[in-house]
Amino acid sequence: MAKVKVFTNILKANDSIAQKNRDIFNKNKVYTINLMSSPGSGKTSLLERTIDSLKNELKIAVIEGDLQTTNDAERIEKYNIPVTQINTDGACHLDANMVDGVLGNYNFKETDLFVIENVGNLVCPAGFDLGEDDRVVMVSIPEGDDKPIKYPVMFRKASVVLINKIDLLAYTNFNMDKVKKDALNINPNLEIFEISCQTGEGLDNWFDWLREQVRKKRDEK
Amino acid sequence: MAKVKVFTNILKANDSIAQKNRDIFNKNKVYTINLMSSPGSGKTSLLERTIDSLKNELKIAVIEGDLQTTNDAERIEKYNIPVTQINTDGACHLDANMVDGVLGNYNFKETDLFVIENVGNLVCPAGFDLGEDDRVVMVSIPEGDDKPIKYPVMFRKASVVLINKIDLLAYTNFNMDKVKKDALNINPNLEIFEISCQTGEGLDNWFDWLREQVRKKRDEK
Repeated sequence: MAKVKVFTNILKANDSIAQKNRDIFNKNKVYTINLMSSPGSGKTSLLERTIDSLKNELKIAVIEGDLQTTNDAERIEKYNIPVTQINTDGACHLDANMVDGVLGNYNFKETDLFVIENVGNLVCPAGFDLGEDDRVVMVSIPEGDDKPIKYPVMFRKASVVLINKIDLLAYTNFNMDKVKKDALNINPNLEIFEISCQTGEGLDNWFDWLREQVRKKRDEK
Repeated sequence: MAKVKVFTNILKANDSIAQKNRDIFNKNKVYTINLMSSPGSGKTSLLERTIDSLKNELKIAVIEGDLQTTNDAERIEKYNIPVTQINTDGACHLDANMVDGVLGNYNFKETDLFVIENVGNLVCPAGFDLGEDDRVVMVSIPEGDDKPIKYPVMFRKASVVLINKIDLLAYTNFNMDKVKKDALNINPNLEIFEISCQTGEGLDNWFDWLREQVRKKRDEK
């Protein structure tokens, strides 16, 4: 009982800081996504592809979440955009307070799209609002087609599911229809894109969707 | 500060129940592994292969951990061995208490090898002793070769790393030497096996290692 109470208090505290973050993003009309997946689904590769294709039309900034190392931030830094690595020192997800702690590193007046890459974990990040506009969940073909039904919490509050590594589809017994059906059963509002960050296939649809969200955010009253 | 204290108490309580579980396994000379990986690395496929190959020489029993669904337990049940599904109802790892709660389902006098398949998560399960003899961590080729350095806690207390899906090696830029070097830097005592649960390649080495551990356990005074 005591445990549950502590966790509820943690979540309440998190929500109030997340709202503070959200106010900052909204005031500056920065469209923000919280990008989540298992380790190795391809979050950082997606970011590299996205920045490379959109950096001349959108001002992009990034938070990289990880247990340790600055590997991912170094990959993003090469594109010459603002990036901060948050090392959670073993913690399994980012929380709103960690994000709040680094927002001073950014000039949000000069930002259209803010991407928060969460720690690689298909369970824990789902419980923690960071202040984002949308949650994007990535799964990849080699992980198998049972991820939505086995990890439903992650899909319930997401806006988008990216199914990555479709270049490996031919070498697996992945059932694309099943994954889509299971994901939409959990959350009928999901946008689903099939992509390959290796070959680039399908990424244009994702870029178009992002452009549209940034435009909508900019036009908000 | 309060949070840290609660977590320390939780871990202490866990360790004392884990020891109780361990006493039961030891008394009955049951060799027990705690199998951990990201979602979709291939834990259940490994189990299917292992049971199929060893069921005539070893008496095997299984715990399946998952957030929800009984999918994995159903896959194992087909082999006609004792299996219990623990659904954590959203919790990100098994703990010793959950395992303790189902041990009554098994006849350990009639068990040589007990496999506990943990929740798919490369972070949280690392903190929780279940009473196992050895921890086995699985990574798979498509997840990329940066898993040991990015998720080191999981590798620190493991005895074995299984590198699965080597049938997909040719379609990726996975650097096998790097992964092994990074893993052994974290933990020089690791046994590392390259395997494919799809083609069966490399599994004989894993089976031999398991046979040897079961034999050692049986011969313990």
